[in-house]
Amino acid sequence: MTKICIVKGQKLAVEQIKRIFLKDTTAARLTRTAIMAPILLNSMGNEHSSYIQQVEYVKNPHLDGMEEDILYHFNLGTKTHDLPQMFGDVKFVCVGGSPNRMRSFAQFIHEQLELPGNIADIRDICEGTDRYSMYKVGPVLSISHGMGVPSISIMLHELIKMLYHARCRDVIIFRIGTSGGVGLAAGTVVITDKAVDSFFRPQFEQVVLGKVIIRSTELDEDVAQELLQYSSELPDIPTVIGNTMCTHDFYEGQGRLDGALCSFSTEEKLEYLRKANEAGVRNIEMESTVFAAMCRVCNLKAAVVCVTLLNRFEGDQISTPHDILLEFQQRPQRLVAHFIKKRLGLIS
Amino acid sequence: MTKICIVKGQKLAVEQIKRIFLKDTTAARLTRTAIMAPILLNSMGNEHSSYIQQVEYVKNPHLDGMEEDILYHFNLGTKTHDLPQMFGDVKFVCVGGSPNRMRSFAQFIHEQLELPGNIADIRDICEGTDRYSMYKVGPVLSISHGMGVPSISIMLHELIKMLYHARCRDVIIFRIGTSGGVGLAAGTVVITDKAVDSFFRPQFEQVVLGKVIIRSTELDEDVAQELLQYSSELPDIPTVIGNTMCTHDFYEGQGRLDGALCSFSTEEKLEYLRKANEAGVRNIEMESTVFAAMCRVCNLKAAVVCVTLLNRFEGDQISTPHDILLEFQQRPQRLVAHFIKKRLGLIS
Repeated sequence: MTKICIVKGQKLAVEQIKRIFLKDTTAARLTRTAIMAPILLNSMGNEHSSYIQQVEYVKNPHLDGMEEDILYHFNLGTKTHDLPQMFGDVKFVCVGGSPNRMRSFAQFIHEQLELPGNIADIRDICEGTDRYSMYKVGPVLSISHGMGVPSISIMLHELIKMLYHARCRDVIIFRIGTSGGVGLAAGTVVITDKAVDSFFRPQFEQVVLGKVIIRSTELDEDVAQELLQYSSELPDIPTVIGNTMCTHDFYEGQGRLDGALCSFSTEEKLEYLRKANEAGVRNIEMESTVFAAMCRVCNLKAAVVCVTLLNRFEGDQISTPHDILLEFQQRPQRLVAHFIKKRLGLIS
Repeated sequence: MTKICIVKGQKLAVEQIKRIFLKDTTAARLTRTAIMAPILLNSMGNEHSSYIQQVEYVKNPHLDGMEEDILYHFNLGTKTHDLPQMFGDVKFVCVGGSPNRMRSFAQFIHEQLELPGNIADIRDICEGTDRYSMYKVGPVLSISHGMGVPSISIMLHELIKMLYHARCRDVIIFRIGTSGGVGLAAGTVVITDKAVDSFFRPQFEQVVLGKVIIRSTELDEDVAQELLQYSSELPDIPTVIGNTMCTHDFYEGQGRLDGALCSFSTEEKLEYLRKANEAGVRNIEMESTVFAAMCRVCNLKAAVVCVTLLNRFEGDQISTPHDILLEFQQRPQRLVAHFIKKRLGLIS
C-alpha cells in the first residue's frame, strides 16, 4: 500500500514527496528563480515550501517524469513556451463558453484595471489552434471553454497543468456564463451554491478505465458569499445564491419542448422544473459539475456566476432582443471584475 | 393512449397525421412550392407524400404548433431566414470539431465539385454567433460541432430541425474527425462499424426529465461499406472498419497518463486499451455515440470517418509534427469528397 504524508494540509504519497525533494537541487532552484515573473517572486517566502504548495494543483504522479508536456488543445508546451514567464503572475482565471465573449471580457478587465496599452493589442495566446481562445490581462486570464462537460474538462486539464508548470499559487477561478433560469426573471445572476446533476445530486460521475468514480461538486463558500455581498454594491445586477443544475444536453436533457426530439408533454416538463426548483435549483447550464469537481480535487478556489437568459417556466426559446441579451451577459463579467478589483485593492 | 398509424414505414400518432393533413391547404402548398430550391422541386414527385417523408427527420409533435423556431446556436430562425431557399437542395452534411477544419473542407469540396466562384467568397452562415461555423457549397453543408457529446448534440438538434424546416430529403451525414488509435498506426482512417461507450456497449444514454433513456448507436452499414470500397481507389489512405469508442473526457476517460488528474498506472491503462481492442474498438473519440443515436432516431443516414493521430498503445501525447497532422486530417475529407463525387455522378 502507498504510504501517505500530510504536507501543508495535503495528503501526499511518500514517493511523490521524495520526487519533489530529490528534484529540487540548487541548480534547478536557480533556474526556476531566474525565469519567474516578478509578482510571483514578490509573493514568495520560502521558495521550497511554496513549490510544495504549487504541487497541489495537479494530482498526477506521472507528470514529473515527463520530458515534455504538450498542452495540445492550447497549442502550448513546456519545451516550446516559457510557461512560468508567460503565466507565473496569474491570480485570477475567468472562463466562459464563447470565444468572443471571453475576448470582450479581457478587454473589459483591461479597462477596469486601468492597465497601460491598447485593448486592440490583446492577442489570443491560443491563436495557433481554434479549440480554445485565451487572453492574458495583468494577473487575469480569460479563456473560452466551448459548450458542455467534455469540452470544459479538456480545457481544465490543460489549464491546471499550465498553472502547475507556471508555478502559480493562490489562484481563484470563475466560470462566467449564461443559463436558463428556474423561477427567476431573465437577467438574474445566479452564484452557484452547489452544482447538481440531472437528478439534483451534488456530484459528478467520471468514468475512469471503465469504472464510475463519484466526485463532490462543492464550490468555495467564502468566494460565493463575497460575490453576493459585492453584487449589492453594483447597480442593476439582481443576484441570488442557489443550486445550478448541469445537464449534458440543451434540449431533451433540460426538458425543452423545441428540440428535434421530444417525447414528453408541457405538463411533464413543468413538473420536472418544479421538482428542480424544490431541490433548490435556480438555473440550468452545461458545465458546472465537472468545473466544481475538478477544481475541488485540484485545490483551486472556484465559483460559478451565470446570468439567466430566460425563465424556463415561461418558455424554451431564447427570443430576447440581441442588445438586451448582450447587457445580461455583461452582468457576471461586471460582478467578477468588481471582485477582482476589491481583491487587488484597487477599490475599497 | 395515443393512437399510432404507419405512414411510409414510420409510426406516427394520429394527432400528428391530422395536424399534417389539416395544415396542408392549397395556399400553404403554393407558398411552399414558391420558395423551394430548384433541385428539390426537380427531385419531388407527389409533393404531399414527400412532405410526410420529410416529417421523419424530426420526432417532436410540438414543433408544428410553434409560430417561430429560433435555431439559437446557429443564429438562424424560421421567421428571419428563408430556410427552404437557403438549404432546400442540401444532400450531404459533413461535420467535424474544428471550425477552421470545416472551413478548409468547404473550400476543398468547392474545388472537388468544380463549382463556379472564388473559394475566398465562401462565407460562414453562422457568422453572427461563435458557437458553430457553417458553410454551404452546392449540395454540401460543412459544419463545426466543437468537442464532446453535449456540444455536438446541440448542433444536431438545430441541424435536424433546419433540414426539416428546409424540407430536405435523402440527406447523408458524415462526421469527419480525429481520434486516438487503438492498435493502429497513426494516420489510419477508421470507418465506424458501431459507436460504443466507455463500457464497450453500442448504446447512448440520454437523460430525459431525470430518467435514463437508452438509444442504439448503429450506423448505416451500406454507407460504411461503400466508403471502405472507395478508400481502396485512393492513394495513401490506409482504412479499416471497426468500433469507435466515445468517451466524455480526453484524459482520465481515455486512460491517458498525462492529465492534471491520474490515479492509475501505465499497466492499468494498457490493460483497459487491450480490453477495448478485444471488444473491436479501433479508435477513441468524443462524439460518435450521440451522433449515431440521434441520426438513427431521426432517420438520417450517417457515417463516422475519423483518422487516428497516434497509437494509444505507444503514448498519450500528440507530438507528431504539424504538417503531418494536417495531412492526416485531410484523409477523411478526401475519402468523403470521393464518396460525394461518386454519388453525384461526377466520377464513375
